[in-house]
Amino acid sequence: MKAFEFLRPKRQEKPRNFGITVMLDKGIGAETVKDLMEIGSEYVDFVKFGWCTTTLCDRDLIKEKIEIYNSYDVKVMPGGTLFEVAYLKNKLDKYFEEAKDLGFEFIEISDGSINLSLDERSEIIENAIDEGFKVISEIGKKNPEIDKKLTPEKRVKIAKHDLNSGVEMVTIEARESGRNVGVYDQNGNVKKSEVEYLISKLPVKKVIWEAPQKDQQTYFIIRLGPNVNLGNIPPEDIIAVETIRRGLRGDTIGKVKLE
Amino acid sequence: MKAFEFLRPKRQEKPRNFGITVMLDKGIGAETVKDLMEIGSEYVDFVKFGWCTTTLCDRDLIKEKIEIYNSYDVKVMPGGTLFEVAYLKNKLDKYFEEAKDLGFEFIEISDGSINLSLDERSEIIENAIDEGFKVISEIGKKNPEIDKKLTPEKRVKIAKHDLNSGVEMVTIEARESGRNVGVYDQNGNVKKSEVEYLISKLPVKKVIWEAPQKDQQTYFIIRLGPNVNLGNIPPEDIIAVETIRRGLRGDTIGKVKLE
Amino acid sequence: MKAFEFLRPKRQEKPRNFGITVMLDKGIGAETVKDLMEIGSEYVDFVKFGWCTTTLCDRDLIKEKIEIYNSYDVKVMPGGTLFEVAYLKNKLDKYFEEAKDLGFEFIEISDGSINLSLDERSEIIENAIDEGFKVISEIGKKNPEIDKKLTPEKRVKIAKHDLNSGVEMVTIEARESGRNVGVYDQNGNVKKSEVEYLISKLPVKKVIWEAPQKDQQTYFIIRLGPNVNLGNIPPEDIIAVETIRRGLRGDTIGKVKLE
Repeated sequence: MKAFEFLRPKRQEKPRNFGITVMLDKGIGAETVKDLMEIGSEYVDFVKFGWCTTTLCDRDLIKEKIEIYNSYDVKVMPGGTLFEVAYLKNKLDKYFEEAKDLGFEFIEISDGSINLSLDERSEIIENAIDEGFKVISEIGKKNPEIDKKLTPEKRVKIAKHDLNSGVEMVTIEARESGRNVGVYDQNGNVKKSEVEYLISKLPVKKVIWEAPQKDQQTYFIIRLGPNVNLGNIPPEDIIAVETIRRGLRGDTIGKVKLE
Repeated sequence: MKAFEFLRPKRQEKPRNFGITVMLDKGIGAETVKDLMEIGSEYVDFVKFGWCTTTLCDRDLIKEKIEIYNSYDVKVMPGGTLFEVAYLKNKLDKYFEEAKDLGFEFIEISDGSINLSLDERSEIIENAIDEGFKVISEIGKKNPEIDKKLTPEKRVKIAKHDLNSGVEMVTIEARESGRNVGVYDQNGNVKKSEVEYLISKLPVKKVIWEAPQKDQQTYFIIRLGPNVNLGNIPPEDIIAVETIRRGLRGDTIGKVKLE
Repeated sequence: MKAFEFLRPKRQEKPRNFGITVMLDKGIGAETVKDLMEIGSEYVDFVKFGWCTTTLCDRDLIKEKIEIYNSYDVKVMPGGTLFEVAYLKNKLDKYFEEAKDLGFEFIEISDGSINLSLDERSEIIENAIDEGFKVISEIGKKNPEIDKKLTPEKRVKIAKHDLNSGVEMVTIEARESGRNVGVYDQNGNVKKSEVEYLISKLPVKKVIWEAPQKDQQTYFIIRLGPNVNLGNIPPEDIIAVETIRRGLRGDTIGKVKLE
């Protein structure tokens, strides 16, 4: 039972197909993971081990962390950049093998720092699915100058292509900072017309909006409802994000509709 | 004994009636709480469980966290927004009952997202006191546009009213960010003339200034001395704030007067 | 063995004489230290106990933390401000004695809030070395207005003087924030021409650039290579910084040269 249970608006419990929260883990210790999951695991659906942080950690520790997360019904994936490094080194087979050995159920496919043609994207996605993974793809470039050249039309095209190729969801890149990339300007403000375009063209239940900042989370929750998918949530904010979803923080009190 | 004890300026030890530090806990785990209190509990007087985060946590875990904090002589209160949600749902009786059951000794009364007349405020405050709680009230609105309409004169009027109604202290709202609300502009800079007005009209020992940012903490410590009451201090900064109070950080070396 | 070992570019392992990372510990608990070292100790060479935070902590706890860090081959030093307070109180002898008792192997000498002539600097540095410490000195002022008067020429002069006096390394001050001090403007942007001047005049393997922000870390890593010395790294970023060093994050993929 929750504290003040009678004040807690209901929302779809885990496992959820949408309304998911993806937490960014950039290298927290196993004890910290346990302590965090003990208090907030209900509000985290996925954890992404940011970019290539995984390869700087001991195998056993990564396995242990994945097991802890899984024991709380939280799915884990390595960051897309790690896939990209494997791609650059022509080691995709070994990459999938090791990911499986370590216990990753999901894989992120992205081209934030490399270039993939649409054909290559679908080939790799299908390959990963054949290997037994569920795939989430990410759309956007790490370098702001290059990312700016990705028009909303192009983003939609890639997203649709990936969904048709079998990915579970597509992520709209915002990096750890949430600034100067994707749908955010250099101050982290939402580029509303770009967001509207994406909303109008894509199945929103399949879109994860990276939204590391509170005002970004609030924007998407008010615009798309409490069951919008949000990514790159810092560990210390997993409960805070859920309060925003449920209209339990000043920013959304009276502004969200829960069943 | 402290490390380098001979370099440590003295300040009133706990329990303190003023010069208090209120830490913001937005959902840290029980082990993290223990570890934090073990190193810094002397420098925390109160912990506020931010807004409605409490109702997303297991009852047993909340009880455990309160017990841990209390064992270190730290008092705990739920955030005012949780009170407001109970008020909106007409469940104040149940709210007080549950708060008592969970072990909260203090209650925060606020109208950051609702509207309370002065009469309602005093009625609720007196009700909470009758129920056995000590009360801290908060003054300010969560929405910056609405908060801007609260003139310093109005803030003073509410604060005096609350103090007359029996609250232990009044908190000047700044939210987690410390930006664009209360006595801070959108960049987090202090609105000095507003602060001066509040200082001139209110008993400062009874005022808690929410000051999540270092420059805000420094401002109040230099202006009002090391024993100013500060709120919304992030967990990772509880020792840092105390160094600023005691003239042990570059910002206040030689600028504070301790007995 | 590391996870995805085959994707991990090599860099000089610890103990390193350069390419070091200095983490800022502003008062984290002992369990947090253990958990952090368990996952990331390979990527931390030094820990600085920020400014005077040490003197607000129990002696036994400080000793325990130093032992934990040391057991992971991480060296620890108290912040320079603590030295400065001891200097102001004419208690340098006691300061060195206590630092030794507590287990500090390194000492930071600085004049961020005091003034030291060059002669005084060398006298104190030599004194500390005689006492058995290794010394790192810091160059810069805590107050931005005063710091601005320190021309690059003056910084170089002090740095060379300190190196001649026997310090292991010199640190270029940036404070916890990385803004409005040293080689950063008020938005945290690098003042490139000042950096170039320092680079042209100083032995860079002996210089630690405080760089708390990601863009600052990236700047120095791209400019000076993966083995640049970086300081004031927040605990949560120790692995992130190493990914940037090794070209394992979008910011530096393909932009660093490792042996």
